[in-house]
Amino acid sequence: MTELVPTKDDKFSFGLWTVGWQARDPFGDPTRRELEPAEIVHELAKRGAYGVTFHDNDVFPFGSDDASRAEHIARFRKALDETGLIVPMVTTNLFSHPIFKDGAFTSNDRAVRRFAIRKVIRNLDLAAELGAKTYVFWGGREGSEYDLAKDVRAALDRYREALDTLAQYVKDQGYDIRFAIEPKPNEPRGDILLPTIGHALAFISTLEHQDIVGLNPEVGHEQMAGLNFMHGIAQALWHGKLFHIDLNGQRGIKYDQDLVFGHGDLLNAFALVDLLEFGGPDGGRAYDGPRHFDYKPSRTEDLTGVWESASANMRTYLILKQRAAEFRADPRVQEALATSGVNDLRVPTLAEGETIADLLADRSSFEDLDVDAVSSRGFGFVKLNQLAIEHLTGIAA
Amino acid sequence: MTELVPTKDDKFSFGLWTVGWQARDPFGDPTRRELEPAEIVHELAKRGAYGVTFHDNDVFPFGSDDASRAEHIARFRKALDETGLIVPMVTTNLFSHPIFKDGAFTSNDRAVRRFAIRKVIRNLDLAAELGAKTYVFWGGREGSEYDLAKDVRAALDRYREALDTLAQYVKDQGYDIRFAIEPKPNEPRGDILLPTIGHALAFISTLEHQDIVGLNPEVGHEQMAGLNFMHGIAQALWHGKLFHIDLNGQRGIKYDQDLVFGHGDLLNAFALVDLLEFGGPDGGRAYDGPRHFDYKPSRTEDLTGVWESASANMRTYLILKQRAAEFRADPRVQEALATSGVNDLRVPTLAEGETIADLLADRSSFEDLDVDAVSSRGFGFVKLNQLAIEHLTGIAA
Amino acid sequence: MTELVPTKDDKFSFGLWTVGWQARDPFGDPTRRELEPAEIVHELAKRGAYGVTFHDNDVFPFGSDDASRAEHIARFRKALDETGLIVPMVTTNLFSHPIFKDGAFTSNDRAVRRFAIRKVIRNLDLAAELGAKTYVFWGGREGSEYDLAKDVRAALDRYREALDTLAQYVKDQGYDIRFAIEPKPNEPRGDILLPTIGHALAFISTLEHQDIVGLNPEVGHEQMAGLNFMHGIAQALWHGKLFHIDLNGQRGIKYDQDLVFGHGDLLNAFALVDLLEFGGPDGGRAYDGPRHFDYKPSRTEDLTGVWESASANMRTYLILKQRAAEFRADPRVQEALATSGVNDLRVPTLAEGETIADLLADRSSFEDLDVDAVSSRGFGFVKLNQLAIEHLTGIAA
Amino acid sequence: MTELVPTKDDKFSFGLWTVGWQARDPFGDPTRRELEPAEIVHELAKRGAYGVTFHDNDVFPFGSDDASRAEHIARFRKALDETGLIVPMVTTNLFSHPIFKDGAFTSNDRAVRRFAIRKVIRNLDLAAELGAKTYVFWGGREGSEYDLAKDVRAALDRYREALDTLAQYVKDQGYDIRFAIEPKPNEPRGDILLPTIGHALAFISTLEHQDIVGLNPEVGHEQMAGLNFMHGIAQALWHGKLFHIDLNGQRGIKYDQDLVFGHGDLLNAFALVDLLEFGGPDGGRAYDGPRHFDYKPSRTEDLTGVWESASANMRTYLILKQRAAEFRADPRVQEALATSGVNDLRVPTLAEGETIADLLADRSSFEDLDVDAVSSRGFGFVKLNQLAIEHLTGIAA
Repeated sequence: MTELVPTKDDKFSFGLWTVGWQARDPFGDPTRRELEPAEIVHELAKRGAYGVTFHDNDVFPFGSDDASRAEHIARFRKALDETGLIVPMVTTNLFSHPIFKDGAFTSNDRAVRRFAIRKVIRNLDLAAELGAKTYVFWGGREGSEYDLAKDVRAALDRYREALDTLAQYVKDQGYDIRFAIEPKPNEPRGDILLPTIGHALAFISTLEHQDIVGLNPEVGHEQMAGLNFMHGIAQALWHGKLFHIDLNGQRGIKYDQDLVFGHGDLLNAFALVDLLEFGGPDGGRAYDGPRHFDYKPSRTEDLTGVWESASANMRTYLILKQRAAEFRADPRVQEALATSGVNDLRVPTLAEGETIADLLADRSSFEDLDVDAVSSRGFGFVKLNQLAIEHLTGIAA
Repeated sequence: MTELVPTKDDKFSFGLWTVGWQARDPFGDPTRRELEPAEIVHELAKRGAYGVTFHDNDVFPFGSDDASRAEHIARFRKALDETGLIVPMVTTNLFSHPIFKDGAFTSNDRAVRRFAIRKVIRNLDLAAELGAKTYVFWGGREGSEYDLAKDVRAALDRYREALDTLAQYVKDQGYDIRFAIEPKPNEPRGDILLPTIGHALAFISTLEHQDIVGLNPEVGHEQMAGLNFMHGIAQALWHGKLFHIDLNGQRGIKYDQDLVFGHGDLLNAFALVDLLEFGGPDGGRAYDGPRHFDYKPSRTEDLTGVWESASANMRTYLILKQRAAEFRADPRVQEALATSGVNDLRVPTLAEGETIADLLADRSSFEDLDVDAVSSRGFGFVKLNQLAIEHLTGIAA
Repeated sequence: MTELVPTKDDKFSFGLWTVGWQARDPFGDPTRRELEPAEIVHELAKRGAYGVTFHDNDVFPFGSDDASRAEHIARFRKALDETGLIVPMVTTNLFSHPIFKDGAFTSNDRAVRRFAIRKVIRNLDLAAELGAKTYVFWGGREGSEYDLAKDVRAALDRYREALDTLAQYVKDQGYDIRFAIEPKPNEPRGDILLPTIGHALAFISTLEHQDIVGLNPEVGHEQMAGLNFMHGIAQALWHGKLFHIDLNGQRGIKYDQDLVFGHGDLLNAFALVDLLEFGGPDGGRAYDGPRHFDYKPSRTEDLTGVWESASANMRTYLILKQRAAEFRADPRVQEALATSGVNDLRVPTLAEGETIADLLADRSSFEDLDVDAVSSRGFGFVKLNQLAIEHLTGIAA
Repeated sequence: MTELVPTKDDKFSFGLWTVGWQARDPFGDPTRRELEPAEIVHELAKRGAYGVTFHDNDVFPFGSDDASRAEHIARFRKALDETGLIVPMVTTNLFSHPIFKDGAFTSNDRAVRRFAIRKVIRNLDLAAELGAKTYVFWGGREGSEYDLAKDVRAALDRYREALDTLAQYVKDQGYDIRFAIEPKPNEPRGDILLPTIGHALAFISTLEHQDIVGLNPEVGHEQMAGLNFMHGIAQALWHGKLFHIDLNGQRGIKYDQDLVFGHGDLLNAFALVDLLEFGGPDGGRAYDGPRHFDYKPSRTEDLTGVWESASANMRTYLILKQRAAEFRADPRVQEALATSGVNDLRVPTLAEGETIADLLADRSSFEDLDVDAVSSRGFGFVKLNQLAIEHLTGIAA
């Protein structure tokens, strides 16, 4: 099927740190050699990606001097030029170095907080230079293991200060960049600040520069809190704050697995792709940005496996897109949606122009409502879900 | 110790449905007889509560006619008058009756949505009459089991419409009432809308009448998503949105246990009480509203056990308050907090009047920072936490 | 596709309490009318089930006198006779009545423990009479909420006493019945005894009559502990103890959802059906007993939805079976399995007749092993899993 | 209080890898320097530990030649001799090196399986030489991320083969060593084989040499599956298989935190210490082996914090022991236990010599039982638990 071959229009992107992961984990040493950024760029391009993303220290080591940094960047840019891959998103590593052990923007140590902001600014300039439109903030070290060791309200003050300072910088420089916060509930910290899509959305609503700050939700991160990722994405869209997305797979509440997209909760992935691709007002895309894979090729894989896993992400996305299209096109599905009243929810509860007084005067809404009749309605949700299963499994195709 | 006897100043309140729970659960029939609201009011008053709260149908049955409703309310009010108990909070039952099986404000059935708003309005009038200052919205049925059966964005539209309509009503009537949304991730629905403190805060930020809408977070509900309840409360306070609180106990990610406060994660409960009682700017209360227990006496208990469990909630709260006071007063704790830099986080990262240009010019913040020296700092968090344990266990007292 | 129509050979069975569930949940009243057992039997037969199962009090109420009990049973038998449905399994309700609030076999009250054994014996006679070959024990009330309220070792003594006493009775009576323990980690108790497949297998190994005691694992119950259900079933098979199975759907660690089979973790359900149907030594069935659905039609469904949900269980099972057959038949899959060394694991680590001394003398196994070469092997697991996804979604069909 | 100072009788031991952890985590580099084993031994001895434990590669690097290995061991032994610390337990590192990426005893690669057995044998000799009585097997890499990539039944065959081969070796050599399996549900593998205490106990029951194989359960590992650790330990004791124990702290279902003992679920830790110290038949110890701390000093700590955290483990254990002793000695507790019928559960359900026929003939047990009276009993569990809280917090002291 031709539609399962990725094209630039699919907007698939990968982080350098994903396929480049050497497979060190908390209990084991690396199983794979280091990959040069340029090597990654070439292979991703060949496989159909349109973009590549990075943390500063994916391209040059922490503490590089200017010359070394420039040289690393030059090699990376060359690969971009050779392949036509773009850099839709850039981010900062504010978690690997020991200096960030108690956080970056919210470390109890002010020197760390100042250093962190400086580190971001330096990389923002690079992001702008490379044409990135989104700058991601994953605050993996912003949090605590011990409840009394972190003043959460002060930490949120500092988090806000950092984001607003950096947003101000972006505006001052005239950069065409928006920020995207990536929530995560825990790991590496016991409890991370802004643990879910919801907490981050709430936080954003308090920012001075909230106009350029949105979200970069990740499948596995929400599922680590047992939350429904599709629901979270829908709420992010509803707030107009889905600026970027991290696709991967997670099998339930446990450590952060970063599996290939779809290799976790497949049903929820199906609903997610359906929403992203066909949830727009006109049945088109509800989100038009990069489909960014933030995953890790399992430690058991060699480089052949790494590259096959990269392709697997894109292919699974395209499979789900195809199945969702068939689902939406099936008249039985349309009928089931009608029975379930799914689209009826778009109708406002009060009629156009109806006042509260009008509602109170409408005895049919309360005093005279045939409660038993309304209560006895069957919503047919199981049947609708079974249709989804049958499309997802291709039985209904 | 005299301070372990509840007084009105402690502001302890209980829902009628808590001690009144007959202990029917998904796998079993009731083990206790029904309790009259008046009986509950008298016993709670005797045990030191200052307030009692209720859903409309805790006081009168669903579908009561006006006369029957009035009679039930009269009996309840008489008990309030006799005991001096106040009604700080009222709420609506929008979940027990089959009509709400797919939700109330967000049911796919518009007739249900209209009915739900009407039901709330009727009970808002009663709440105002009884002097309640807070009206709680727990949307336990607002959600879905099946991803494709609920248009989440439409549901959030309807949720907003309902809340803003009802807030408008409250303002129109001149009621001195604020709304408090109670988040929950799941149960009875597979995925409930506004699943956490964060999601609800974000939602509130979009309301027309957000000035009178805040939160009623519940210990167990956040812990059902594996989230740190104290962190959540701190964020709610930071947003100025902690309007009410539901205290109880939960032992990890599982069904909603509604144990006695402190009978779950005791360490987190300690940090919570410390925050509520001593987290104010002056070391006083960070939250001055009711300490509301929303728990269920275990199914194994008879009425003697029920009342002992009611007292256990208040007593555990007071124990934790005493231990937290001792913790705060201990000079070793003050020293440990200093070593950990907990209070240093209140210092802004940029100096007063410092501009971004100034920061960029400050080579000591980045170029000349002794990264190794800063990185080698030990934060002493384990020691601080051990001090908390030693105070909590009274060893340090 | 004809193979998606259930036949008797598929051995699909349902509990009376599944489709018969009236949809009362912890927060809501029933949404559906009661169904007569006979009505259920007829409809299940029509839809392709081969068997029906029940708790004693699904057929006759708790405390029925002999005449009433007999009458209820007679009506049920008549339906069985009319439809040809068999009763492959029977069980006891030891959880709904208040008398069991602290457990049945392990209640702290000895009178309850004696009563429970008697209740089971009475129903064992009925099970034998109806030709059931399996008798299930779900000890949902055997457990505790409070660690110090239950002497777990004494409880296990009593549990063993009860099972061995009942097994003795079965043998004394010459009944052709085996017992199957159904583990569950929690709900309705805070912590249930024998919480997982593993704990129950271990317990069984201590029984006097362990020869006739095995397991009845349930999808959702293991998944409520975050465990891999297919792994658990494989271990149960390995012990020769998979006597019965409860199929349903669960979406992660939360309350017991009892969704339709496959409406939860679809990938794991695929691997499960693959194991059950094609995991036998000859590529045939690894388990030949009933495929028993223990699920609950969602509270939002009316009776039409109930019956459609019953069919959905069977249909999803058959879809997964078909996809697994295709997966096994695909030469690319065979090649991927070889690359991954999946079947190599069946080769003993020591050669036939090799002694420990021989192994120690084999320098190629240790001293002279090319560790780097062995370590560099790629297992190709992601590719294999992607093939599973592509078969499951029918793309590879 | 003198009893809070650790003594040899307390049998506190630590792994070299615990305090020696350099704090590399999945998202960050080491924050602390390497510690020499000898340095660790001296400091632990000073702080009151009686024993130290290790993996082979904690003392000498993977792949050391004989001379280098001997030299490392000599330095370690010297420290033991100087301090009088014993080595109660030894284990093998079968997880860090890339060769074990798909497991050790159950790798799909037979060469790895053979290598793993050889590696253990070599270290068993050392363990015997050092007088260790327990040899631990943590199979962290034995498992899978992908359901179809591991033949679980074949893996269990190989696991059994490995354990029985090694046990045979121990017996052949006449070593006074017993094996202890350490279960874990996941991390670093997606699903680890023998995920819980129960699964491991069941597995052991199938071993040829099961007489010398038991368990080494770890607090956090069971809690990562949401299981009650005290319940698990009670079942392990009941099977006579608690050979060793790993104490630490975990805050719910998430990544493996390895906090200080008691810094997680404090109530469950209290019940655990109560069981271990006072759960014996005579009210004495129910388990007399090492109290082994398997924890990690948080990444935020420097070496001062590391050593303070080591002491915190022991001190918290002793605090809980003291509080449990007071709890047991309190007459109100004895009365509450009686009301709750906790000890009544030790009374067999059938009277001594009572046959099934006798039970059936006892109409008072069933036909004539006053079900309502029995059902109405209140068990007083909440009160009992509240007494536990009041002792744990020292309010009742």
